[in-house]
Amino acid sequence: MKALVYHGPGQKAWEEKPKPVLLSTSDAIVKILKTTICGTDLHIMKGDVPEVADGRIIGHEGVGVIEEVGTTVSNFKPGDHVIISCITSCGKCNYCKKGMYSHCTDGGWLLGHLIDGTQAEYVRIPHADNSLFLVPSGSDEEALVMLSDILPTGFECGVLNGKVQPGDTIAIIGAGPIGIATLLTAQFYTPAEIIMIDQDDNRLNVARKFGATQIINSRNENTIEAVMKLTNQTGVDVAIEAVGIPETFELCEAIIAPGGRIANIGVHGKSVRLHLEDLWSKNITITTRLVDTVTSPMLLKTIQSKKIAPAKLITHRFRLDQVAEAYDTFGNAAEEKALKVILSS
Amino acid sequence: MKALVYHGPGQKAWEEKPKPVLLSTSDAIVKILKTTICGTDLHIMKGDVPEVADGRIIGHEGVGVIEEVGTTVSNFKPGDHVIISCITSCGKCNYCKKGMYSHCTDGGWLLGHLIDGTQAEYVRIPHADNSLFLVPSGSDEEALVMLSDILPTGFECGVLNGKVQPGDTIAIIGAGPIGIATLLTAQFYTPAEIIMIDQDDNRLNVARKFGATQIINSRNENTIEAVMKLTNQTGVDVAIEAVGIPETFELCEAIIAPGGRIANIGVHGKSVRLHLEDLWSKNITITTRLVDTVTSPMLLKTIQSKKIAPAKLITHRFRLDQVAEAYDTFGNAAEEKALKVILSS
Repeated sequence: MKALVYHGPGQKAWEEKPKPVLLSTSDAIVKILKTTICGTDLHIMKGDVPEVADGRIIGHEGVGVIEEVGTTVSNFKPGDHVIISCITSCGKCNYCKKGMYSHCTDGGWLLGHLIDGTQAEYVRIPHADNSLFLVPSGSDEEALVMLSDILPTGFECGVLNGKVQPGDTIAIIGAGPIGIATLLTAQFYTPAEIIMIDQDDNRLNVARKFGATQIINSRNENTIEAVMKLTNQTGVDVAIEAVGIPETFELCEAIIAPGGRIANIGVHGKSVRLHLEDLWSKNITITTRLVDTVTSPMLLKTIQSKKIAPAKLITHRFRLDQVAEAYDTFGNAAEEKALKVILSS
Repeated sequence: MKALVYHGPGQKAWEEKPKPVLLSTSDAIVKILKTTICGTDLHIMKGDVPEVADGRIIGHEGVGVIEEVGTTVSNFKPGDHVIISCITSCGKCNYCKKGMYSHCTDGGWLLGHLIDGTQAEYVRIPHADNSLFLVPSGSDEEALVMLSDILPTGFECGVLNGKVQPGDTIAIIGAGPIGIATLLTAQFYTPAEIIMIDQDDNRLNVARKFGATQIINSRNENTIEAVMKLTNQTGVDVAIEAVGIPETFELCEAIIAPGGRIANIGVHGKSVRLHLEDLWSKNITITTRLVDTVTSPMLLKTIQSKKIAPAKLITHRFRLDQVAEAYDTFGNAAEEKALKVILSS
C-alpha cells in the first residue's frame, strides 16, 4: 500500500509500505476513506515530537471501512464504516474505567505517534471495540472526520474543562481548526459573549460567521486592553487557550476574571510563567487535558441533529495521493485561507 | 484603647489608639476576647504587603463580644459573643451573591489590611450581619478563633478546591497552621493516604498525630522520589500547596498524577514556572482561592459535634498586652514548637 512516511524533521514521502496485518485478536484493519492533517502533524514534521520514529506513518484522524477484525472484536464487522478515534483505549485499565482514555495504559495517543497512523491506504487499529465509532448510514463522512480529534478536543479540553455556562463571557485564543471547533461546541451552553482572538483576519472573519460575538486581531490591538474594555474592566469568565505558546497562555492569565476558568488546549513545548503573585487570591481554575474522545458519541448526535455543522471547517479537498500538496496548503494556512483539508481515497 | 500598630517593615508597637466608632449603620463595634497571629501578619511585618499603611492596627482573626451595633444591623445585639470572619462581605454585590465573599466589592480582606484589625481591645466590623458568626453558648471560644481564617482557608482553598475524595492519595506541602487545618478537614472525605511534607520534624510529628499517614522531611529526603515511591510511581491525586513559594508549587507539579488536582493555598509574592510542556496532556486542574469563609457555619457544626478539635492547634497562650512576646514566639515557630498562639483580653 501507499502511505505518508516521516523520515525525520522536514522529511516525508508518499511511499510504498507493507499493508498492516492483525497483531492482536482485538485489532481491526481499516481501509481509509477520508483523512485529514492536524496541526500536531505539522509539529511532528518540524521535529517537535521526538518520540515519532523515522519510518512512522503519520496521521491520527479519519473515516474508513472495516477490512478485517480480530477474533475478539464484537462491535464491528468487515464492511462497517467507522470513525477512527485519535485516542486508542483498552477499556479495561484504571484510567479507561475513569473515562480518561487519553491515559490508557495500553493506549492513549498511539496512531501516527507511537504506531503507524491514518495518512495511508490502510491502518491497524488496536482495541478496535473501544477505539472506533460506527458511522450512521447516510452520514456526510467528511464531516465525521472532525469527530476523530478536533471536535472532542475543543469540546472536552476547552468547553467542558472551562465549564462554559449560559450568560458567561468567554474568550477563545486561537481561531485555527481547534479554536473554531471550540467556538462551535461552546454554543451548546449559550454563553452571552464569545470573544475570538487571533492574528489572522480571515480566520477571525470565519469565527464571526460561526458565532463569535467579538473579534480581536492581537497583531493590531492591545489585546488585554481590548478585552478589559469589552468586559467592563472585569475580565472573562472563561479563557480557552488554543495555540500552545507561552504568550497566549499568559494572555489568558491577564484577562481572567476573579472566579474564572482558564482551559488549556494548546500543545506546549515550553514552560510558561504562572503569575501566582496576582492569581493566588483570584479564585481561578486552570485545566489541562489530552482529549479522551469520551464525548465523540454525544457529539455525533449533535451533528446528526444538525445542532452543529462541522463540515463548515473543511476548506480544501485532495486525493490521498496528493498528500504532499495538502501539507503545503495546510502548512501555509493564512495565505491559503485553510482550516481543515480533507484527503479522500 | 490599646492596639498593635504597624509602623512600616519591622516596626510595630502596642500603643494607645482611639477606640473605634460606628461609621455606617451596618457596622458593629466588637470588644476582643480572643485573637491570634497569622502567618500573613508576619508577611505584613516584613513589608511584603505594601498596601498596609503606617499606623494600621493589624490582625484579622478573633472572638469578641458585641459592644454596639448600627441601626440596620439585625443579626446581632450588644452582649452577643461572635466569631469575626477575616473576610468582610456586604452580601449584596454580584460576588457575594455567588458566595465569593473574598471578592466583595465593598469588602474582602479588609481587617488588619485596609482598615484597622483585631489585635486590639476593640475593632469596628463593617457589614456586621454578613461578617460575624454567633458563638453558640458553652463553646470553647479559643477553638472558635480557628474559624476566623485558618479552618475555612484549609478547607475551602485546599480540601474543597482539591476535590478530596474517599480513597484519594493526597499530599499537603507545609505543616504550619494552615497545612494542619487542611489535614484536619481533609479527613471529612476519608482519603486513603495523606502525605505531609515539611522541613520541620516537630510539625511533621504533630501532623502524624493529627492524621497524616506518611510524613516526608523535604530537608532530608528527595521529596519527589519519596512521593513517587509511596504512590507506585503514579503521583498523588491531590497536591495542596500551603507554603507560598515557587519551590513548593513546582513540587506539586512534579508529584501530581494524571487527572490530579493541585490546590494552591499559599500567599505567593513571586511568579512560578508552570511546566505546561509536561502538564498540557496530563488532565490536571490547578486552583487558587482567597478564602471566602462561606463554610465557617458548616465548620462550626463539625466542631460542635466533635468531628474536629481545632483547639489542638493552640500551642501558646498570652495576654493581649503581651502581643510583642507572642510575635516573637510565633515568628520563631520551629524553635518554639509553635502552631497557633492565643491572645486573651
